[in-house]
Amino acid sequence: MSIPSGVNTSIILRLELDKNTASFGSIATAISDTGGDIIAIDVVRTDKNVTIRDITINVYDNKHTDLIKSTISKLPGVKVVHVSDQTFLLHLGGKIETSPKYPIKNRDDLSRVYTPGVAKVCMAIHEKPSLAHTLTIKRNTVAVISDGTAVLGLGNIGPEAAMPVMEGKAMLFKQLAGVDAFPICLDTQDTDEIVRIVKALSPTFGGINLEDISAPRCFEIEQRLIEELDIPVFHDDQHGTAVVLLAGLFNAVKLVGKSLSDCKVVLCGVGAAGTACTKMLMAAGVRNIIGVDRPGAITRDGVYDNPFWQWYANNTNPDQIHGSLSEVIEGADIFIGVSGPGVLKREDVAKMAKDPIVFAMANPTPEILPEEAEPYVRVMATGRSDYPNQINNVLCFPGLFRGLLDCRASRVTENMKLAAAKAIASVVQEDELNEYYIIPSVFNQSVAERVREAVIQAAYEDGVARRRREKVQA
Amino acid sequence: MSIPSGVNTSIILRLELDKNTASFGSIATAISDTGGDIIAIDVVRTDKNVTIRDITINVYDNKHTDLIKSTISKLPGVKVVHVSDQTFLLHLGGKIETSPKYPIKNRDDLSRVYTPGVAKVCMAIHEKPSLAHTLTIKRNTVAVISDGTAVLGLGNIGPEAAMPVMEGKAMLFKQLAGVDAFPICLDTQDTDEIVRIVKALSPTFGGINLEDISAPRCFEIEQRLIEELDIPVFHDDQHGTAVVLLAGLFNAVKLVGKSLSDCKVVLCGVGAAGTACTKMLMAAGVRNIIGVDRPGAITRDGVYDNPFWQWYANNTNPDQIHGSLSEVIEGADIFIGVSGPGVLKREDVAKMAKDPIVFAMANPTPEILPEEAEPYVRVMATGRSDYPNQINNVLCFPGLFRGLLDCRASRVTENMKLAAAKAIASVVQEDELNEYYIIPSVFNQSVAERVREAVIQAAYEDGVARRRREKVQA
Repeated sequence: MSIPSGVNTSIILRLELDKNTASFGSIATAISDTGGDIIAIDVVRTDKNVTIRDITINVYDNKHTDLIKSTISKLPGVKVVHVSDQTFLLHLGGKIETSPKYPIKNRDDLSRVYTPGVAKVCMAIHEKPSLAHTLTIKRNTVAVISDGTAVLGLGNIGPEAAMPVMEGKAMLFKQLAGVDAFPICLDTQDTDEIVRIVKALSPTFGGINLEDISAPRCFEIEQRLIEELDIPVFHDDQHGTAVVLLAGLFNAVKLVGKSLSDCKVVLCGVGAAGTACTKMLMAAGVRNIIGVDRPGAITRDGVYDNPFWQWYANNTNPDQIHGSLSEVIEGADIFIGVSGPGVLKREDVAKMAKDPIVFAMANPTPEILPEEAEPYVRVMATGRSDYPNQINNVLCFPGLFRGLLDCRASRVTENMKLAAAKAIASVVQEDELNEYYIIPSVFNQSVAERVREAVIQAAYEDGVARRRREKVQA
Repeated sequence: MSIPSGVNTSIILRLELDKNTASFGSIATAISDTGGDIIAIDVVRTDKNVTIRDITINVYDNKHTDLIKSTISKLPGVKVVHVSDQTFLLHLGGKIETSPKYPIKNRDDLSRVYTPGVAKVCMAIHEKPSLAHTLTIKRNTVAVISDGTAVLGLGNIGPEAAMPVMEGKAMLFKQLAGVDAFPICLDTQDTDEIVRIVKALSPTFGGINLEDISAPRCFEIEQRLIEELDIPVFHDDQHGTAVVLLAGLFNAVKLVGKSLSDCKVVLCGVGAAGTACTKMLMAAGVRNIIGVDRPGAITRDGVYDNPFWQWYANNTNPDQIHGSLSEVIEGADIFIGVSGPGVLKREDVAKMAKDPIVFAMANPTPEILPEEAEPYVRVMATGRSDYPNQINNVLCFPGLFRGLLDCRASRVTENMKLAAAKAIASVVQEDELNEYYIIPSVFNQSVAERVREAVIQAAYEDGVARRRREKVQA
């Protein structure tokens, strides 16, 4: 079990203290001595002989917690009942809730929102099904659907274990863009069955966000659903990352004074995400992309079982450059990593063209650490929050779905994704743009609104918006 | 389209008024003259030539609305832009929303509820799946699932049109018992597929409330799901009605001083609901039930294609009474109607035993109207809110699921349903009990709490509770 850590956290120690033998002073001292920082003390219960107290402590990591626990346990009259950490406490009972938009105060209200009054709303929808977009939660609700096969970097951990991620996503949907999102983790990994299920669920929802479904199943599932449903379907792991990457690249090339269409781009890790990123880069005008994976550079004369590699062979590497990453990186303007830790060496960066741009997005450990690349790199981005320029799909999905729902789009188009990338990039103003600020923060309030506007504009241009333009608020 | 009405409602007229020719005074007068009651006037927009105003008016019914609309349209300078009624306005954008339980205020919060911190919660569930009940919304969330095949009295109106009912139900779940309920209307009517889908959805939920699925499919779907899932599955249309009916009967027989086990009961309408009610009555000690449907009384010597009738033939009518409803009703203590309007005649009630109890639950028009039965009947209940003693499953489902979730029950037992019925009946105190108050109001705050306690008690007795007893709050 390898989990990205690096966040300081707080724990709550529940202690049972013998009133005669335990000394709170010695407990506090012992905690301080380990480096722990007591931030709150609550008395839970007390009787003649014992007191139960909850002590909230800021700690560095799990080892620190263990140290505190073992130190405290040795003190006279002290029993450690249990230790909870802040992250687990925030998850108790789940992170989202479903509530009425207004209370049912009396019989009159009840007869409108439920029987008998609700019947005329049902019949209105029955007679004109598109009214579901107006008179039900379909108007504002997205399903966040996973089968738990590719959760974060944790792999195939199953539907129950995937829920906390999907709930977190639902929180972000609502907080950042006012979208109601409901997480559904499916207890099946069968492609056909997932397609059938999502189709059957679709009357309730205005959009489908697919999440953490393993490749290559995710492509077939997404493609079939796009073809068979009349609401937008978006596999965030592919397209969300691609949109935000492109947003970062727009600003990076602007900063160094290059044009994307003239850049030599080397992409390492030719899989699901890499291919989605490549398609977006090509839509944005990039012409010279070379993909590198286990066989080295993917070339037209290679023979590949892997369908991504084969697609890459057919569509990229116009100059048919052969070789290892260290070889093909020579003279490249941009490196994009969606592979694994440490694959790009400092010497490789040194061989790149002037003003190298490195997007090392492997999580939790990037293809090269910013401190290692620093002597040579000009602009550097990663997937991590503890370095500048984080490529995080939170910048895309809330505003994207806000726009899709508002104009009642039937699908996500390439034009929309490109527009969303430009919108994200535009949040960084000309005079703010610098090596350490090419992409806005996930907490920047204007990102979702800009993305929404761009998506709506694109939806009307592409003819996929189903709501009258004048009804969509600016 | 026949829809139960009878509720006064308010409408909003949006008018475009020519500033030169329209007179607001004459509009107000015209509305009053029809009997309409203006309760609010809002100016939406105004320019040099026209004003747009919204006039909120209390009206009697749709005919009244039409009358106002046609009267107003004839006035000089007035254009009716549109008419919205209060019920439709309450449904705009749906009736429920999904929200974070707390805001994500900063990077630290984000790293706990989403990546990277969420990963350790995911892994904890992966290692011990039962933690899903503690650390995800499974703890408090029920799916309200329908296929739209038997919605209210409207029939097979499809999944989109069924949504407003399911959303209304979700509102009641939260308001009355704090249960998060999410409505899902399925775009399939295939029994096997519905079973497969609900099984696949189950990791997200702590319980399944099936709703408005047509018979006999509803039985197979419920039965298979009960057998295959480890969370409770409850088809409300059958069992909810049965529980509340039984609650009413407990109090009705108490009032007239009879014992259920000695009563002769005639049930009219041997279908899904009728059979579920019968099973509950038998569990409560009723021995003498005679079912009546199109062939007259169902008897052991009859041969029936209809599976409900066949079950009835095998299990009821111990004295093998033959005949029509008018014949078998003679000497009956209790009539239960789950059939259609007007099937019970005043003369039939006159032939019943002393102190007749009539539960005429056909909706919207009962088997006999209370005013018709009045000269002969002692205790009368219907499914309607505009007569005393409404048999409404809102009295059952919120508290039932509250109890199921709180003790983490794996299934609903017969014992639980019986306990729930007794709990509902117990809310009407001895000294309050009378002919017009045998069942509490749907707004009575203590119903859900009583039902919850009874269900938890029964769950522990039946060994289906999976949470340690001492952890379940009293």
